[in-house]
Amino acid sequence: MDSYPIASAAVLARAQAVRLMIFDVEGVLTDGSLHYGPDGEAIKTFNVLDGLGIKLLQRAGIATAIISARSSQNVARRAADLGISHLFQGVHDKAAAFGELLQQLGLGADLAGFIGDDIIDLPILRRVGFAASVPNGHIEVRNRVHYVTTAAAGNGAAREVCDLILRAQGRHEDILAAYLT
Amino acid sequence: MDSYPIASAAVLARAQAVRLMIFDVEGVLTDGSLHYGPDGEAIKTFNVLDGLGIKLLQRAGIATAIISARSSQNVARRAADLGISHLFQGVHDKAAAFGELLQQLGLGADLAGFIGDDIIDLPILRRVGFAASVPNGHIEVRNRVHYVTTAAAGNGAAREVCDLILRAQGRHEDILAAYLT
Amino acid sequence: MDSYPIASAAVLARAQAVRLMIFDVEGVLTDGSLHYGPDGEAIKTFNVLDGLGIKLLQRAGIATAIISARSSQNVARRAADLGISHLFQGVHDKAAAFGELLQQLGLGADLAGFIGDDIIDLPILRRVGFAASVPNGHIEVRNRVHYVTTAAAGNGAAREVCDLILRAQGRHEDILAAYLT
Amino acid sequence: MDSYPIASAAVLARAQAVRLMIFDVEGVLTDGSLHYGPDGEAIKTFNVLDGLGIKLLQRAGIATAIISARSSQNVARRAADLGISHLFQGVHDKAAAFGELLQQLGLGADLAGFIGDDIIDLPILRRVGFAASVPNGHIEVRNRVHYVTTAAAGNGAAREVCDLILRAQGRHEDILAAYLT
Repeated sequence: MDSYPIASAAVLARAQAVRLMIFDVEGVLTDGSLHYGPDGEAIKTFNVLDGLGIKLLQRAGIATAIISARSSQNVARRAADLGISHLFQGVHDKAAAFGELLQQLGLGADLAGFIGDDIIDLPILRRVGFAASVPNGHIEVRNRVHYVTTAAAGNGAAREVCDLILRAQGRHEDILAAYLT
Repeated sequence: MDSYPIASAAVLARAQAVRLMIFDVEGVLTDGSLHYGPDGEAIKTFNVLDGLGIKLLQRAGIATAIISARSSQNVARRAADLGISHLFQGVHDKAAAFGELLQQLGLGADLAGFIGDDIIDLPILRRVGFAASVPNGHIEVRNRVHYVTTAAAGNGAAREVCDLILRAQGRHEDILAAYLT
Repeated sequence: MDSYPIASAAVLARAQAVRLMIFDVEGVLTDGSLHYGPDGEAIKTFNVLDGLGIKLLQRAGIATAIISARSSQNVARRAADLGISHLFQGVHDKAAAFGELLQQLGLGADLAGFIGDDIIDLPILRRVGFAASVPNGHIEVRNRVHYVTTAAAGNGAAREVCDLILRAQGRHEDILAAYLT
Repeated sequence: MDSYPIASAAVLARAQAVRLMIFDVEGVLTDGSLHYGPDGEAIKTFNVLDGLGIKLLQRAGIATAIISARSSQNVARRAADLGISHLFQGVHDKAAAFGELLQQLGLGADLAGFIGDDIIDLPILRRVGFAASVPNGHIEVRNRVHYVTTAAAGNGAAREVCDLILRAQGRHEDILAAYLT
């Protein structure tokens, strides 16, 4: 029997408080690849495990959002497929977008989680109650977050964080039970 | 001389009984990547080793099927190329599709195999005689199947299961002999 | 100082005799991925290291060829870019195509090399003087060839074989010297 | 706390002198994959971590350039997005292009850095003050450069070199501080 990646009690407590989970796109929901055609990015590669994790968060009543420095119709389409209504693309000041989102939802930063991979994500990562990164994230980021996933970006990292939140909040067993009847 | 991945006698007995092998798509026949263009999924990436394995199963008289939660013309095309006639896409209730397929073929669940990667696959995995998953499958799935492949999804995992079935049924040596004359 | 992968004296002697090197496509020049769009394969992914290796073989007077079970315009285009004039696609009987190619070139099988990954490649692999495969090749193939590359398919495996041949024939030092002036 | 990959004092001194950093494309800014459609290369896959690194170099006043043997509109578009104004594509004589670039900028070769992966890059690598390569680079290249990245090509190798230069020049702390306010 394999086990879930280990999370400390402190990390579980932070995950337990999350009412809003925010995802960076490149290097988190994707592996960081930018597939260019002659007119710029042609394809954006997401992961099926992550998709179900985000849907499970939503079913558990947790708000989901994307804040990304880049912008593409491919991301808009993926967000629509996943029912992510809070979509901030082409964001140059990530902290400002984050503040705006909190205000929209009437939440404090301590109830928010964010997973990012590069130094431009630090302004949000330093503010949220639950800050996460990925194995291939920039070292200055990995050294400043509460949790670094075992799974790689674009290959289940986001799902690992979703599962962690659901388990910390005692919601995972019910979800699983529905598939075991 | 390298060897095939080890399978227990119990697993071999289950593989020996298989008359119908069912494959999940995302995260099994693919590595779980979803390649999005502006209008949704543009490309679906399969593997050539898996393709030959599925054809060899068919030549040995074993029925092959796909049951997938998602739906795309790319998968339909791949299934057609491989001669997989039992194609269930866009399936929300996987157990129901599974029951329908068994009825079509007049087979009991104990003569069916299924390889899946996520918790939505558990309703089928719990019913089949031979349940398999992949190294990157969800932990709740990997902990509940009879066999987890050594090869990664989208990189030979399905082929490994096909070879296991053919070997358990004593069909692999004849297949190989045809290429060694 | 890193070193080239180790090859036995017997392998080097076989590589030294090669006057014609034949490459399989899927799982050798590519990593085995089949990128499907709605009308079948849309993209075929090759590797830049392999390309230079094949050109260097040609400059050394060694004939290069492709024999593949599948067929696509993408492969034809890549072969044209690399100057591979002997292109056999959509081949069902690989041994027959191999025999035809030998006759065209007036060469014996002992002067030919082939690198393949799956059991359908065995009829050629058993006949050539120098048989090679890749780390992700089928176990029945890897156990029957003279040399298995260290580099992965689609990530330098073909280049490793080209370098091995050029080094065995004493041609690599001159090639390198031209870039060190 | 993880640390940056180790660089010797000699390597840091070379990185400190860099006023111009030149990047090879295939196998450095990409993982070496060539995604072919029927009319040749359709997609070129870059990495988001590398992109930010190149922009940070520019902000620090270091000139950035691309010298590549191949040529595609996809690379031109990526270079434009990153503000790389010195773009040399379809270059057969890399040393000549390098000399032309130095003359344009009025710089000596000892103030230039180059990261490349194959033997055709040796003429530049032997001339620059700071020569770098990647883990999957050709062995004859890796054995002749000052620094081989820990990160893989197309997955942060270029960023690692950018960070190394910025740190050697004492510019990285200011950049980071801006994201930690």
